[in-house]
Amino acid sequence: MTVDANSSISVNTDTTKQQALKSKAISLDAMGGDNMPHAAVEGAIRAQSEGINVVLVGDTEILSAELAKHGATVPIHDARDVITMQDHASEVRRRKESSIMQAMQLAKSGECSACVSMGHSGATMAASLFVLGRIKGVERPAIMANMPTLKGVSVLADAGANADCRPSYLQQFAVMGSIYHRVLHGSTNPQVGLMSIGEEEEKGNELTLESHQLLKETASIKFYGNIEGRDVLSGDVEVIVTDGFTGNVILKLAEGEAKTIFKWLREGVESGGPLAKLGALLLKPVFRKLRAKLDPSEYGAQPLLGVNGYAFIGHGSADSKAVYNALKTARLTVEAGLLEQLKTEIAQLS
Amino acid sequence: MTVDANSSISVNTDTTKQQALKSKAISLDAMGGDNMPHAAVEGAIRAQSEGINVVLVGDTEILSAELAKHGATVPIHDARDVITMQDHASEVRRRKESSIMQAMQLAKSGECSACVSMGHSGATMAASLFVLGRIKGVERPAIMANMPTLKGVSVLADAGANADCRPSYLQQFAVMGSIYHRVLHGSTNPQVGLMSIGEEEEKGNELTLESHQLLKETASIKFYGNIEGRDVLSGDVEVIVTDGFTGNVILKLAEGEAKTIFKWLREGVESGGPLAKLGALLLKPVFRKLRAKLDPSEYGAQPLLGVNGYAFIGHGSADSKAVYNALKTARLTVEAGLLEQLKTEIAQLS
Repeated sequence: MTVDANSSISVNTDTTKQQALKSKAISLDAMGGDNMPHAAVEGAIRAQSEGINVVLVGDTEILSAELAKHGATVPIHDARDVITMQDHASEVRRRKESSIMQAMQLAKSGECSACVSMGHSGATMAASLFVLGRIKGVERPAIMANMPTLKGVSVLADAGANADCRPSYLQQFAVMGSIYHRVLHGSTNPQVGLMSIGEEEEKGNELTLESHQLLKETASIKFYGNIEGRDVLSGDVEVIVTDGFTGNVILKLAEGEAKTIFKWLREGVESGGPLAKLGALLLKPVFRKLRAKLDPSEYGAQPLLGVNGYAFIGHGSADSKAVYNALKTARLTVEAGLLEQLKTEIAQLS
Repeated sequence: MTVDANSSISVNTDTTKQQALKSKAISLDAMGGDNMPHAAVEGAIRAQSEGINVVLVGDTEILSAELAKHGATVPIHDARDVITMQDHASEVRRRKESSIMQAMQLAKSGECSACVSMGHSGATMAASLFVLGRIKGVERPAIMANMPTLKGVSVLADAGANADCRPSYLQQFAVMGSIYHRVLHGSTNPQVGLMSIGEEEEKGNELTLESHQLLKETASIKFYGNIEGRDVLSGDVEVIVTDGFTGNVILKLAEGEAKTIFKWLREGVESGGPLAKLGALLLKPVFRKLRAKLDPSEYGAQPLLGVNGYAFIGHGSADSKAVYNALKTARLTVEAGLLEQLKTEIAQLS
């Protein structure tokens, strides 16, 4: 089932795998990430049991052994190299045998419909750009993150792919974010807010002042205007547009603060005596629901939109549930024809 | 007690006020803000009862009537104009009779030691710059915000004064933030973290990449390196340095998320049946403590450091407790000689 690790791109001809590929399997980098390969294998088994076909990409021996523990069969595409968190993202260019590059190649060649990785985010992004290329007209692909809000879920674009941006990038993020929100959350005409430091259009930095004008003139989106940090979780807008630096700070602060507040609550309960402990016990279902709402693994992974294919980037700490959710999210976007919608709307922008 | 509202700068010669000024009273814009003048009057009365002298700046008739309700006497400096939230910040230049401009003039002339306003933030900032000017060598004054963390309180610099920044500004923010943390929180050698999107020094945007190198070379601070959004509330660094755009987003997101999480908790309790309600009742003291920790009015107002004087900017929604806390914070920094320390360390930078 395995092929020579030194060949440039290895294609597995196993029958089970061929069947999986026919029904548009998703290639899963099963080696990159803190909890790999077991989280990848468990997530893939669960997804497969629900009709989502997956190809595990990684070391065949390790993956076979892991699958054997579960008595399960999932197609494997052999890849003997792994980009670790210690490696530089740019190494993907020369390490074509790495699991992320092999997984991406499967998505590129059409053997697989999409690629999911929980490994090195920078490397996954670099591999996506290098292997899939950009959609014609897209200046910079962007990461779309899902944020829980008081009214549902909003999409944050860009969540970290582009640290320095131009107004035209933000315009494309707005268009791509709107399409992604429609596809993933079933909205019809999502409102787009521009992250700034004042609601008035004359407030902001150089980037947002120019971007505000451009977004106002963009016919294909529903522009709400500026929003502020306090509006991120209010859900008044479904799409939050910002540069990748600010977006990444927002995403990580939101996750970090939720964890900190839970920690403070736990400390308060622990030092609060038996009545506080009883109270916490009675509120357990409420806390559990709140925790689930704030759980970043709810959607499993974030797409890099703007590349010419489907690439999903997950948390390095992803567990099997996150892998499963990522595969579900990938499948949903593929079935909805997200890529074709992006191509059409980006072409109309210019 | 009042003077002609049309005179350029009115000086009140009332004896009570003279005494207040001698012992370094703080001028309080008693008109600007959502809850004025009652929050200003109540906050000032409380501060005065604890030996912090205050001059209320605003419409004498209105303020006298408000003071009469409490049977209290606090010196008043008459000012008949108010800059409202609907006005443009730059209007302070020509509206010298406004409460914020009059209050700032008192801090400039030496009649008062510091100026506090809960009104229009932009106008307060503009008035500070216009009336007090900058400390020699300071490129851009910055707003210092206090953030609760797992280990205490950190200072965020800049929290919103400068939307677009250069590396040299961030270097000065780091120095000013360190001094402020030492003065307000009693630290000896606070660690400075540079807000970025990766811990590695080669990660970030153009501004942070350059700033990182500059901060490394700054002898008067203890530079920790880059931090990420998730580290804001961890308290691993005492001073968080960032541009005013990102800082403002961080500050408002942190406040907004805390409110949202409490809202979700409340909703969960309300829909959770009688056991959940009992649980919430038992946890009331824990919730109250957590709420107090996350309360932005804890320090009342944020200083604009780098101007040649003491100017404090509060929340428009400030209540009397926030006003009282702001007056206490102002008094503390004046007594510690913060301004002199800033002048010395900024001079050493160049």
